[in-house]
Amino acid sequence: IRTKLPRVGTTIFTVMSQLAAEHGAVNLGQGFPDFPVPQRLVDVLAAAMQAGHNQYAPMTGIPALRQAIAEKTERVYGHLPDADAEITVTSGATEAVFNAIHAVVRAGEEVIVLDPAYDSYEPAIELAGAVAVHVPLDPATFAPDWQRVRDAVTPKTRMLIVNSPHNPSGAMFAAADMQAIAELLRGTGIYLLSDEVYEHIVFDGARHESALCWPELRERTFVVSSFGKTYHCTGWKLGYCIAPPALSAEFRKVHQYNVFCTFAPAQHAFAQMLRAEPEHYEQLGAFYQAKRDAFAAQLATTRLKCLPVPGGYFQLVDYSAVSDLDDAEFCRWLTIEKGVAAIPLSPFYATPPAGQRLARLCFAKNEATLAAAIERLQTL
Amino acid sequence: IRTKLPRVGTTIFTVMSQLAAEHGAVNLGQGFPDFPVPQRLVDVLAAAMQAGHNQYAPMTGIPALRQAIAEKTERVYGHLPDADAEITVTSGATEAVFNAIHAVVRAGEEVIVLDPAYDSYEPAIELAGAVAVHVPLDPATFAPDWQRVRDAVTPKTRMLIVNSPHNPSGAMFAAADMQAIAELLRGTGIYLLSDEVYEHIVFDGARHESALCWPELRERTFVVSSFGKTYHCTGWKLGYCIAPPALSAEFRKVHQYNVFCTFAPAQHAFAQMLRAEPEHYEQLGAFYQAKRDAFAAQLATTRLKCLPVPGGYFQLVDYSAVSDLDDAEFCRWLTIEKGVAAIPLSPFYATPPAGQRLARLCFAKNEATLAAAIERLQTL
Ligand SMILES: CSCCC(=O)C(=O)O
Ligand SMILES: CSCCC(=O)C(=O)O
Repeated sequence: IRTKLPRVGTTIFTVMSQLAAEHGAVNLGQGFPDFPVPQRLVDVLAAAMQAGHNQYAPMTGIPALRQAIAEKTERVYGHLPDADAEITVTSGATEAVFNAIHAVVRAGEEVIVLDPAYDSYEPAIELAGAVAVHVPLDPATFAPDWQRVRDAVTPKTRMLIVNSPHNPSGAMFAAADMQAIAELLRGTGIYLLSDEVYEHIVFDGARHESALCWPELRERTFVVSSFGKTYHCTGWKLGYCIAPPALSAEFRKVHQYNVFCTFAPAQHAFAQMLRAEPEHYEQLGAFYQAKRDAFAAQLATTRLKCLPVPGGYFQLVDYSAVSDLDDAEFCRWLTIEKGVAAIPLSPFYATPPAGQRLARLCFAKNEATLAAAIERLQTL
Repeated sequence: IRTKLPRVGTTIFTVMSQLAAEHGAVNLGQGFPDFPVPQRLVDVLAAAMQAGHNQYAPMTGIPALRQAIAEKTERVYGHLPDADAEITVTSGATEAVFNAIHAVVRAGEEVIVLDPAYDSYEPAIELAGAVAVHVPLDPATFAPDWQRVRDAVTPKTRMLIVNSPHNPSGAMFAAADMQAIAELLRGTGIYLLSDEVYEHIVFDGARHESALCWPELRERTFVVSSFGKTYHCTGWKLGYCIAPPALSAEFRKVHQYNVFCTFAPAQHAFAQMLRAEPEHYEQLGAFYQAKRDAFAAQLATTRLKCLPVPGGYFQLVDYSAVSDLDDAEFCRWLTIEKGVAAIPLSPFYATPPAGQRLARLCFAKNEATLAAAIERLQTL
């Protein structure tokens, strides 16, 4: 078999989770929490099954959930999307990213991604027959250089993919970034794919700049989010895409024949949860900020150096005082020899910056897990 | 926006379900049961959530489920697939079909489909940049003419898609068909995609000819199935693909970056259910045969003429004694004026046979639903 995706191997998240399991390491690698889903969600999901909501959901998602997402969007961002024409429920943000790319990007076209970038973007682009054009973020601050992005635009550019709060760095866009994107895209036929799965995990009073808040961007943007990160249920695979009607129509053509619809009982559960407990997502930033701060304070007792974390639930650490290994080797060593699994940054890059000595630690963990990790990291 | 899928509209299943809802019709259109999921499944799924199985499942599916699928396959078909290398859990059979096509079919290649064909095949082929080549089944018996299939093969042919028991006709392959496919594919680079979602719904002592039972086919085949039809939970969207290691490796590259993994608690539920109650799928044929026979006996009191139903849960009826409308118009009329939603056959064809007067009725319904439909159909 001649593979269509020669560069795709097993994702680093699976590799490190398996290595962690094999070696009994504390798993701060793959991004998922180790504390429970809100009990209300479990209860309403069970009740939805018991009530018989077990057959195909509407292809676009059940109306009550789309309506609840629309209302939440208005509450948080001051913009009310059309639940019927603009919101589509997906099997997680990953499917939404895949569909958006396949909906509008054609063979031979180009998609700009900002490195480091989440690892699903490029294979999805390649499978659509298109080419990922990589523009690096600043290696120290992970800030975008919009002039470099502008320089990467060609007549073949069809899409720009952005992600704020950013995985793996936690960096966040400011209003000036949104303005720069709007200027950059003005008058072009380039679509924006805005991956906002960490939208509610923002710190220090900062505001998440959603593409939905910017009318000029909104009209050309697929905004992708998910319940997995917000509700501690990464294994439930429920996400959504908000895009203007014409873009949603194309998105839905792909979704309809990709998975058709998603697990119906969970849709009922979130339709209730979003309305019943808005404080859940409103307080999520504070919840994770406490974890971030406690973890950083503990890391200060180790030889790892913390980088700032404006958003998301990952702490980047500079390990150059500890080791000269490259990041992939270091993370393997850390997992096997020190019993703490971390994610190297190089798999997020087409061309990793030479000499970068950074590893990503997930702090979406309960106190005991983080304490066990710190105890091991103190031996570095 | 210049669409990539100009021929894709809203699927006929959604169209007819919506029309049924608008007009209060008995919905015998879209294929889903109206009786409950086995209580054990609901209970073990709820228990899995409560036990905390709410984070990312392994990309290929949880090992216990893959093992249970392997054992079930051996029990039913006498062939034990390798749970690690050959089985991948998907978001329903639809995602599995989509992935298999995208895994091996390239732009400019051809895929042979036998018409009438399930409506997701062609858009998935088109999105991969390939072309669907349609070969009609016999319009009266829905039997394949393998010589016509052979004549459709070109150097560009990369895949043949088959579906037995067949949707919409219920026709089933005999051993001779499997031999014909094996001969046809021998020495070619053509893969087989075998959609076997109705594998357990077979009647009159017939045996489902799975591609898994034919070693020569197995080595080039993606076998796709799903729990939705077997366990009365079409809205749970849990399916799987069985393919040899090299094909599974390519399949998984697509799956990994399409949805990554599926709703984790349901995987735990089916891992238990498959082992705990093999009688569920073993008795499913008898369960549906009783429904088929009762429904056909009642239909004999109407002016609709039943076609034979060897497998699946759809009854085709010839309405030519009742109406001269084409099938799309007839099904709309039947839904709106007579209060029974049915599915026309023409959307399953690239070129519908002229003058065909057939509609598809789903009999996966409880007695009261079928009785209400019959009462209305008696007024025809
Ligand atoms: C789909 S596994 C990856 C999870 C994740 O978002 C991350 O760890 O970055
Ligand atoms: C995904 S909706 C279609 C369900 C089905 O299998 C059918 O009705 O044929």
